[in-house]
Amino acid sequence: MVKRSFVALAEQTTRISRMSYKNMLKDPSVKYKAFKGPVLTNRQWPNNTITKAPRWLSTDLRDGNQSLPDPMTVEQKKEYFQKLVEIGFKEIEVAFPSASQTDFDFTRYAVENCPDDVTIQALVQSREHLIKRTVESLKGAKRATIHTYLATSDMFREIVFNMSQEEAVAKAVEATKLVRKLTKDDPEQQGTRWSYEFSPECFSDTPPEFAIEICEAVKAAWEPSVENPIVFNLPATVEQATPNVYADLIEYFHTHISEREKVCISTHCHNDRGCAVAATELGILAGADRVEGCVFGNGERTGNVDLVTVALNMYTQGVSPNLDFSDITSVVEVSERCNKIPVSPRAPYGGDLVVCAFSGSHQDAIKKGFALQEKKRKAGDHMWRIPYLPLDPKDIGRDYEAVIRVNSQSGKGGAAWIILRALGLDVPRNMQIDFSAAVQTKADSLGRELRADEITELFKQVYNYNNEASRYISLLNYNVERKDNERRVLSGQVEVQDTVKAISGVGNGPVSSIIDALSNMCGVKLSVEHYSEHAIGTGTDTKAASFVQLRYLREEDNATAFKWGVGLAEDVGDSSVQAILAALNNIIEAGEITLPNVAKKAKTSASA
Amino acid sequence: MVKRSFVALAEQTTRISRMSYKNMLKDPSVKYKAFKGPVLTNRQWPNNTITKAPRWLSTDLRDGNQSLPDPMTVEQKKEYFQKLVEIGFKEIEVAFPSASQTDFDFTRYAVENCPDDVTIQALVQSREHLIKRTVESLKGAKRATIHTYLATSDMFREIVFNMSQEEAVAKAVEATKLVRKLTKDDPEQQGTRWSYEFSPECFSDTPPEFAIEICEAVKAAWEPSVENPIVFNLPATVEQATPNVYADLIEYFHTHISEREKVCISTHCHNDRGCAVAATELGILAGADRVEGCVFGNGERTGNVDLVTVALNMYTQGVSPNLDFSDITSVVEVSERCNKIPVSPRAPYGGDLVVCAFSGSHQDAIKKGFALQEKKRKAGDHMWRIPYLPLDPKDIGRDYEAVIRVNSQSGKGGAAWIILRALGLDVPRNMQIDFSAAVQTKADSLGRELRADEITELFKQVYNYNNEASRYISLLNYNVERKDNERRVLSGQVEVQDTVKAISGVGNGPVSSIIDALSNMCGVKLSVEHYSEHAIGTGTDTKAASFVQLRYLREEDNATAFKWGVGLAEDVGDSSVQAILAALNNIIEAGEITLPNVAKKAKTSASA
Repeated sequence: MVKRSFVALAEQTTRISRMSYKNMLKDPSVKYKAFKGPVLTNRQWPNNTITKAPRWLSTDLRDGNQSLPDPMTVEQKKEYFQKLVEIGFKEIEVAFPSASQTDFDFTRYAVENCPDDVTIQALVQSREHLIKRTVESLKGAKRATIHTYLATSDMFREIVFNMSQEEAVAKAVEATKLVRKLTKDDPEQQGTRWSYEFSPECFSDTPPEFAIEICEAVKAAWEPSVENPIVFNLPATVEQATPNVYADLIEYFHTHISEREKVCISTHCHNDRGCAVAATELGILAGADRVEGCVFGNGERTGNVDLVTVALNMYTQGVSPNLDFSDITSVVEVSERCNKIPVSPRAPYGGDLVVCAFSGSHQDAIKKGFALQEKKRKAGDHMWRIPYLPLDPKDIGRDYEAVIRVNSQSGKGGAAWIILRALGLDVPRNMQIDFSAAVQTKADSLGRELRADEITELFKQVYNYNNEASRYISLLNYNVERKDNERRVLSGQVEVQDTVKAISGVGNGPVSSIIDALSNMCGVKLSVEHYSEHAIGTGTDTKAASFVQLRYLREEDNATAFKWGVGLAEDVGDSSVQAILAALNNIIEAGEITLPNVAKKAKTSASA
Repeated sequence: MVKRSFVALAEQTTRISRMSYKNMLKDPSVKYKAFKGPVLTNRQWPNNTITKAPRWLSTDLRDGNQSLPDPMTVEQKKEYFQKLVEIGFKEIEVAFPSASQTDFDFTRYAVENCPDDVTIQALVQSREHLIKRTVESLKGAKRATIHTYLATSDMFREIVFNMSQEEAVAKAVEATKLVRKLTKDDPEQQGTRWSYEFSPECFSDTPPEFAIEICEAVKAAWEPSVENPIVFNLPATVEQATPNVYADLIEYFHTHISEREKVCISTHCHNDRGCAVAATELGILAGADRVEGCVFGNGERTGNVDLVTVALNMYTQGVSPNLDFSDITSVVEVSERCNKIPVSPRAPYGGDLVVCAFSGSHQDAIKKGFALQEKKRKAGDHMWRIPYLPLDPKDIGRDYEAVIRVNSQSGKGGAAWIILRALGLDVPRNMQIDFSAAVQTKADSLGRELRADEITELFKQVYNYNNEASRYISLLNYNVERKDNERRVLSGQVEVQDTVKAISGVGNGPVSSIIDALSNMCGVKLSVEHYSEHAIGTGTDTKAASFVQLRYLREEDNATAFKWGVGLAEDVGDSSVQAILAALNNIIEAGEITLPNVAKKAKTSASA
């Protein structure tokens, strides 16, 4: 007896691989055909919106775990289970207990360690000895669901099981009756609230009339109640078509199954076409009561539907999902540690990059949005309405620091936001433009994004923040006297590189008089091009920040030039003097004017 | 003048963060409200299916690049651009040329290096000097599209631009007229086929009547033709609602814009709610002609829609996408190298894990699917119909090796598939069960997935493949003579650890007579429990593989035991003898029977 089928198959797969893709591109119908959904005559779901949370079932520990290159260890399953409970899942599919001792043991752990209001669910094939073993694994649970499944799609019945529709119905009914006998009908099992879930596989590829037929037979065999409805889980085991087709199938089921009040319709969508979230949401619109999936979309191939996204999508529409993702970072951590699969940086809500804006126009819009929101908040309007941020990052425990990040494509807004967050400084618009050029140069030279701390450091250096970077001249003391109605006279002492010098100047206010005094001392003509200041903090902690741009003539070529400085002090007057000195010291540092007794700087070291 | 707004804002954000999430969970309407779409009275899109490919625009180099923590270098942009051309994109948005010299220079590169049938698109704000600079950057292109945008949503107009609807219309018309004057109306620009794209931002949040109003005004200002329609790009800049709402908005636009034949409706979906692919597909059903997005869904925050998924989703429905992803691995490589963001292992089509099955039942189904497909192929049916594999991996240049992977949760099918692919052996069902236990033990002990080469190595060792692992007894030569009608007599010579011994035995065929001869020599009773063989290859290269399970009594406890062996030879008879010897040597290696002159093995080293 020489068997050849698989050998021939191996050859066949090679042959297919040699077929020209280009030819298929011209006529792809050679290999694929469009999926045909049901024809609905009175389709309702597109008129609906989601107004309440569904029942949730996490199958992370079953469908998720079985799809991992490196499945979870027992310890990891325990950690994951606890996290699911913490998030607020009330139904958790924990294992396939009849498949291995490990799965059986973990089911026991879950039964013995879960809160009373959590239902433990276990999956089992429709076979007698496996069902018995599964019931055994759930013994003593407060709430348990036995989940059986059977091939109902033409493809699965024909290819995998070689079973007719009649045989499938008979087998499903037989399994259901056995589960019933061993659970809710068993006098010794009355301490458990037993529920039953049946999955016609692959529902989305099953003729809708047959899905109804087999589920009616299963329902009659189980005899559910309104209080404890039977769960018909309708899996898109493989995503087959656009998500509206799945919704049509759900609506067909929803409108054709009898005793609808005793039935819980559950979705179970996979993501082969990248539309699992959409199919789930449209399924809810079409009548589904319950959603199965995994956190961050783990699961076979492209994954099960991502429950984080479905839940937080509701949240941003004002519907409480009844799941708590207020510390999403810890959920990411548990998921990545146990699944050993990274959460994509672009995964909705949880991804590293999804609350970030790099582009200048987005950053500006976000800043403006926060400013307007603050105004509205004062007028009693607490709605969240920020451009590019559909969800307040704080709601999921994420930081505002991440909102705006700066790369070489960013505009002025981003860097200014960082400085506001880091130093409390509300950088004036003209200075923002100046600083954004410095940031771009730096980001370009590094060829990467700048971190917030690097931007802050750059700002302090470029603007000689409070004279920390360069301090050729320090003000020791000063006094301003009113000479007449219009003029003020300043006299004081500065230290210029270990030498104390007296200075004096005249102006129509403290700023102009110190500018005059410093101009006199340096022998150059300084003037103020821009000036602004603002308070930082409130009450006794208040400080004043001043921003000054000086205009001067460069010694080198006698051209007009400008430099900014930033000063910070408890007193407004002091802060403006510090800002003026910061700018002046900056000019000296750049070697563009020379003080007596101070060596002229070489141009190349100007920004050292 | 002390400005306080941003400082107060920083304080405000801190205050929000201290609000209790739990309270919001109880009443999330404090901060969020549901999105309201238009009311369609005669909705058609759910009745439609996708029957042809849209026009595609890649904005990888613009919207994609601006969202990267580390934007592409010029060299990377060039590599990426060439790859996009290779894939077959005919419209490529390359930059924001008025924003920086780098972007301007790259636009020039694209203009000078692209095929004649590719249209270069550049984005620009609706401002005169920026538009002029942008037109300059595109000078000499064969085909070019100028893309302007303007805030039209209430939120963007109010928060970001503080502009009324009337002002927005006026500004859009003014910008359009300027572009027209500088491009298609300029006698010196007639060498270029100029197209125009206008994006009302954020379309999905703009009152649909106003979107029509501003687009009508822009259309009148541009005066498009049927041959060169105006592109109205309708962005879901931020995804706001379930994807059916976006489809409603597109259908509203599609049915309300005048001169529909002179208009190209383009989608531009972001993925904030994980539904960008769905929104794009439903948008096509609703009337869109063109799709903007990025390869593998790069782009701001959660990304732009993933063009790979949208295109290959069509492919599996028998619709040619007119894009070539036949070497998807190289696309992944370029994307990861240039974007420095990994493609998720679960990304549809491109992800590492998406053509893999780890679960035993999935693996069995896939094997059965391939077997049935081979039968159908012979009957002239070339359709692709494999469970759990919506797309033939070969179509995108992926390998069948990856289809089935084996972890501790896998059943027998997976390992058998690996052996079929690696050694050409079609492992018998009983042996599959035996081998799967060995694989599970190994995977459990390593705590991880086994690689294909490890599984192959394990198989060779466990079944003493062709006596490579243990060779206590080798057959030197043998001869089988027909004694009478029923009996055969075998005589031959074996080498037992450097000693040549004569053997002889009787049976009703070659297999039973060699078993008898070896039983005699060893002084134990051996018998064949399972036996099968098959050919490998065709024509002159054909070899024969044999699988033999021996039954014997263990010396230790006199219990009946079984061991498999595998033999390979050019002749069927030789291969079965090799298999029998492989099993026997395996038994000796395990120390379960002892040969004269061969030291008894310690049990612990049995599987060394």
